[in-house]
Amino acid sequence: MTRSTEATPSSQAGEPVVNPRKGKIVLAHGGGGQLTDELIAEVIRPRLDNPILSELDDSAVLPAEAGRLAFTTDSYVVQPLEFPGGDIGRLAVCGTVNDLAVCGADPRHISLGLILEEGLEIDLLKRVLDSAAAAAKEAGVQIVTGDTKVVGRGQADGMYINTAGLGMIRKNVKLGLDRIQPGDAVIVSGQIADHGLAVMLQREEQTGIASTLKSDVAPLNRMIGALFDRVAESVVFMRDATRGGLAGVLSDLAERSGHHLTVDEAMIPIRQETRYAAEMLGLDPLDVANEGKVVVVVRPEAAEPALEALRKDRWGTEAATIGYFECERDGLCELITEVGGRRIIQKPYGEELPRIC
Amino acid sequence: MTRSTEATPSSQAGEPVVNPRKGKIVLAHGGGGQLTDELIAEVIRPRLDNPILSELDDSAVLPAEAGRLAFTTDSYVVQPLEFPGGDIGRLAVCGTVNDLAVCGADPRHISLGLILEEGLEIDLLKRVLDSAAAAAKEAGVQIVTGDTKVVGRGQADGMYINTAGLGMIRKNVKLGLDRIQPGDAVIVSGQIADHGLAVMLQREEQTGIASTLKSDVAPLNRMIGALFDRVAESVVFMRDATRGGLAGVLSDLAERSGHHLTVDEAMIPIRQETRYAAEMLGLDPLDVANEGKVVVVVRPEAAEPALEALRKDRWGTEAATIGYFECERDGLCELITEVGGRRIIQKPYGEELPRIC
Repeated sequence: MTRSTEATPSSQAGEPVVNPRKGKIVLAHGGGGQLTDELIAEVIRPRLDNPILSELDDSAVLPAEAGRLAFTTDSYVVQPLEFPGGDIGRLAVCGTVNDLAVCGADPRHISLGLILEEGLEIDLLKRVLDSAAAAAKEAGVQIVTGDTKVVGRGQADGMYINTAGLGMIRKNVKLGLDRIQPGDAVIVSGQIADHGLAVMLQREEQTGIASTLKSDVAPLNRMIGALFDRVAESVVFMRDATRGGLAGVLSDLAERSGHHLTVDEAMIPIRQETRYAAEMLGLDPLDVANEGKVVVVVRPEAAEPALEALRKDRWGTEAATIGYFECERDGLCELITEVGGRRIIQKPYGEELPRIC
Repeated sequence: MTRSTEATPSSQAGEPVVNPRKGKIVLAHGGGGQLTDELIAEVIRPRLDNPILSELDDSAVLPAEAGRLAFTTDSYVVQPLEFPGGDIGRLAVCGTVNDLAVCGADPRHISLGLILEEGLEIDLLKRVLDSAAAAAKEAGVQIVTGDTKVVGRGQADGMYINTAGLGMIRKNVKLGLDRIQPGDAVIVSGQIADHGLAVMLQREEQTGIASTLKSDVAPLNRMIGALFDRVAESVVFMRDATRGGLAGVLSDLAERSGHHLTVDEAMIPIRQETRYAAEMLGLDPLDVANEGKVVVVVRPEAAEPALEALRKDRWGTEAATIGYFECERDGLCELITEVGGRRIIQKPYGEELPRIC
């Protein structure tokens, strides 16, 4: 229990000895000591500031609000950290906001857990945090609590982010796969597969494939809120089509509801450019992750007003009805292809696109 | 948009082609497809099962409860993943439970975000999940939502875990550094420095240093609840002494309250064995992380009943009053050493013990 004050690196003249490379994350940034405080005070807090976060206690204390809460979490390991249309910060906020929104909740509060790799450029961290803050503002949520850890070189790939989110469940919303009936319509809120392909093409940049594809990463809670405002009672189920893509959601809807689902390939919104990119990479766009698309099951009579509500939002202009549930109870999702063939849509087996979100 | 069903690896005879090494995590476990479902259904869900988690939706829906919420998050990157007295699973649950408890909240719900490295032994994952579940049971909290990502070899060090937690703030509790007054007593709930040193010695195992030191990682919410039940109005502030150790908390208490804090080294509980281990590794035990120790500031007249309440709990038997706030307003924490000297306790500068939690 003896330690001379003089041995503390910060008290020596000049550069702190544990931070020889200015502008980069060092292990000491994660030690819970003075350098951690500096990182939080100078880099993190100014970017995410709000009255609740500013308390800087171990937990955020949230205002009391009546009603049921939705609670969710996701970790983000996308590579590269920045890609056309977004970055890991925007992704981490939007992904958790969307997970809450598709459960019928209005997202309110987000936590942000950072795992940083030694050597990470602090300027990159700043850009990611600015982007997370902008996405939170866009979604109308507050980042109220956080945590920062640092691991050594080769122990994380730049940075990973975990977000958890809290939202208040809307009172007039009741979603469940058990509510699905024959005749219910399946809507997708816009053009598919842009996120996964934009990230993949960014990785392949050096191969010389040029593309203007951008990730669709966006907070969908306002669009979904407008949908509920219009036809809440008629919305039966909702899911965002992230990992596993549209195929993952559609096959899951059929399997878990037990109903047969028929989907018309010609009705699925997709950019021509996206289709080319998928062909070039040998991928089925149905399997490719989206980060700004939601699949909605509605009663048949509500399909048109639902589309109207979605299309009024900037993220839902290309919304379309793509299929209907049938009377057969075989739990299969069948795709009618553009050339008139039929095939069963299966959930992708494994990782066709690693580190996509 | 064409994909023949036959091309799906799972439909081929024999072993799935993307999982050549049974018993280890492969990238495909993180793809959001069938293998992800299998991992969740066979490995994760049976270990953490409860009615809320079983819904398997994007978000957990929590029962409505009146009052203010506490919300917190932490990522865990400890190395090695298993150490004497605990593992990363127990650590991830206890750390978040304790962050809630020291804010005066009764912990209720926990999220669990896993980042797994390709090649991780699934048996190790099972042990970690069993341990997390046991810690949750011990603390009386439910793991209600989760997420699993997989990254490639060399992109995480086995596994990282993020937990976020929700708790209900106790009504009769009011904690704040601004409530600290001269005369207030500072209590530590037991022997310090065991966690950090147990982890460090485990890493040094091959150097032949033998030790029976164990991490103190434990959920403290029941002990803290008993303390509040006894002397709630007299508890002024509380903090768990994790990263940065007891020195980090004590220097922070003095600096942020603006008061002078005098601590008596002879009163700080520490095992003889822990002291030897720290000397051997050249560390000041005051700087070493704990994962089952809390620092409590109480009104002077409440110190004795507070100690009684703490000592009745299995995790608080060695609780002791270690210091008092003084009238001077210099924001310094002064240690009276065992040989009668005086030195200022400073917050550790950086990372003396990397990857300790």
